[in-house]
Amino acid sequence: MDIYEESLAFHKKNKGKIALASKVPLNDRHDLSLAYTPGVAGASREIAKNPEAVWEVTSRGNWVAVVTDGSAVLGLGNIGPRAALPVMEGKCVLFKKFADIDAFPIVLKTQDVDTFVNTVKELSFSFGAINLEDISAPRCFEIEERLKAELDIPVMHDDQHGTAIVVSAGLTNAFKITGSSFENTKILINGAGAAGVAILKMLVSLGAKDILIADSKGIISADRTDLSPIKKNLLALTKPHEIHGTLSDGIKDREVFIGVSVGDVLTKEMVMSMAKDPIIFALANPTPEIMPDVAKEAGAFIVASGRSDFPNQVNNVLSYPGVFRGALNARAPQITDAMKLSAVSALASCVPSPSPDCIIPDVFDTSVVEVIARAVAKVST
Amino acid sequence: MDIYEESLAFHKKNKGKIALASKVPLNDRHDLSLAYTPGVAGASREIAKNPEAVWEVTSRGNWVAVVTDGSAVLGLGNIGPRAALPVMEGKCVLFKKFADIDAFPIVLKTQDVDTFVNTVKELSFSFGAINLEDISAPRCFEIEERLKAELDIPVMHDDQHGTAIVVSAGLTNAFKITGSSFENTKILINGAGAAGVAILKMLVSLGAKDILIADSKGIISADRTDLSPIKKNLLALTKPHEIHGTLSDGIKDREVFIGVSVGDVLTKEMVMSMAKDPIIFALANPTPEIMPDVAKEAGAFIVASGRSDFPNQVNNVLSYPGVFRGALNARAPQITDAMKLSAVSALASCVPSPSPDCIIPDVFDTSVVEVIARAVAKVST
Repeated sequence: MDIYEESLAFHKKNKGKIALASKVPLNDRHDLSLAYTPGVAGASREIAKNPEAVWEVTSRGNWVAVVTDGSAVLGLGNIGPRAALPVMEGKCVLFKKFADIDAFPIVLKTQDVDTFVNTVKELSFSFGAINLEDISAPRCFEIEERLKAELDIPVMHDDQHGTAIVVSAGLTNAFKITGSSFENTKILINGAGAAGVAILKMLVSLGAKDILIADSKGIISADRTDLSPIKKNLLALTKPHEIHGTLSDGIKDREVFIGVSVGDVLTKEMVMSMAKDPIIFALANPTPEIMPDVAKEAGAFIVASGRSDFPNQVNNVLSYPGVFRGALNARAPQITDAMKLSAVSALASCVPSPSPDCIIPDVFDTSVVEVIARAVAKVST
Repeated sequence: MDIYEESLAFHKKNKGKIALASKVPLNDRHDLSLAYTPGVAGASREIAKNPEAVWEVTSRGNWVAVVTDGSAVLGLGNIGPRAALPVMEGKCVLFKKFADIDAFPIVLKTQDVDTFVNTVKELSFSFGAINLEDISAPRCFEIEERLKAELDIPVMHDDQHGTAIVVSAGLTNAFKITGSSFENTKILINGAGAAGVAILKMLVSLGAKDILIADSKGIISADRTDLSPIKKNLLALTKPHEIHGTLSDGIKDREVFIGVSVGDVLTKEMVMSMAKDPIIFALANPTPEIMPDVAKEAGAFIVASGRSDFPNQVNNVLSYPGVFRGALNARAPQITDAMKLSAVSALASCVPSPSPDCIIPDVFDTSVVEVIARAVAKVST
């Protein structure tokens, strides 16, 4: 029985993964009159008088909606909202486990951007924050932007920023080992979807000056005639005029490879064509762009992947629980770039002495959430 | 400190009433790979292949959305969705306590009927059923009708049908004591909002042939020129041509009074003008149409109210947990009239030997949910 079959049986046995917990006793008439009628009118009147009281007298401030339309689920693609539900429930139990956040999965019927945005706005009064999940690019960019603009609670698309935070923290620690910096390093990002675009933007705001980004058709360069508006906008952030062509063309002499694409696209030869002692983040799941041991054989100095059976596992669970915990604790109206960058250095600081086999904390390192939450809350506005 | 102040302090202390519970362990990498990536893909693929599998591998089948727009909250009126949240959280913990149903409060920003209906449709894939709550009449009728027609999961507006079920069960038992029946009893319903209309319709389907219904302007009769379309439709179900005028005019010689209106509208004199040994349901909260002891002094034989400090407490918690439990257990696509009528006789049967001071079970009678759930599931289609 492989892990997929084992997990299917596990899901059937448990009938899913989430349930409601009551925080209050309901054992007699007095309990009932406090939690419900007539007493509850006291709490409702308080909010009617002062809407801010909702954060004090209800659970709203600790509930996060995990919202998807099922358009880009894991590596499975557009399997639709119903089939996305097990993944969203999984995300909810991770929120609970790692950050004591109460999360609820909202799988929307629609894959229309306007309807998505309007529906989330309509139900936002039930939540303290919105975690967008597994939404296909480029729709995810517009959905996040619009919801951020229109809601006064934090909104974050985890596939973008959660990933970018962990990659940036890992790279920060890798540079501590190599002695280099964002400013003077040649980077290539393979994959220009949600994660690739967010990583690119975050690396630029961390000071990176020489980044190439490639999609499945090759380097995103000015001579490409097939670029979407989103990808065209990336040209200003990269070095489009100097290098164009395939991934093989682009990878030459690069010092860092960050793959958020598909399995097995990075060959040993490509790694050997990179600068000496390159840093490889091969994050495609479950099959990385290159297997970590193969990358090492080809000369990579530091290798990270999404896999738990190799060192340096890049997993969003290292970032989003702390980011949302911090935003909720501060009752922040949004998750700003400053808060994300604060999360990057906080996460990096959780590895006091980075080494090639340890640039990122273990996913079960329970100190991480607290460190990130504090750092995020501190700079929240 | 009165009950409202005590409840406000209780809400502040607990920071609301609901939290998420994880049904699965997450203690090591293997747990993580079963509940989330990569294993969860096995559950998602199963649903992608067969959408019905969502009921087997997710928690959806035990989650009920408690949805309101805050337009008619308790006796507080249109206090809006934010202020409605404590009441909805209360409903959720009651669902959990009485029926082991996982319920989540959705407080919609909108009070527009179309937007309400569309939003609930969009998020319905996250839920096994929809409990509508505290929505003003006549909007509640259209919202419920449209959602019932457009969704393939159970939808019930509890303020209508939950109340109607408990009243009908109480009356069933009252008639066992008096030896009368729905068919030959003169009934007056005071209040033509959500509950009043639903009670009227249910009593008619139980065989009642002589019902008057009154709103705040008096008996709903054919000579009224101020009737809304909904109220006009009630004329066909009542005896409009014989009696018109005020509540005082209508109450004369009636054998049953059912108040779902406001406090203190039924006087001793009105009770004395009723037929001998009348049955009084004075359900306005927290102040009944007439206090139960006053009604008794005026000659009432059986009195029920919403109050826990008098016998025969009519409380919806006696009906909706069992109705939804039964509908979810049967995975019913809707809650039909047959299922509601089955709930009525099941609830009535929970009092084996009715007496004037005991026509309805105690709200903490734990056998009720199971009895109703079985009866509802049995006739579900």
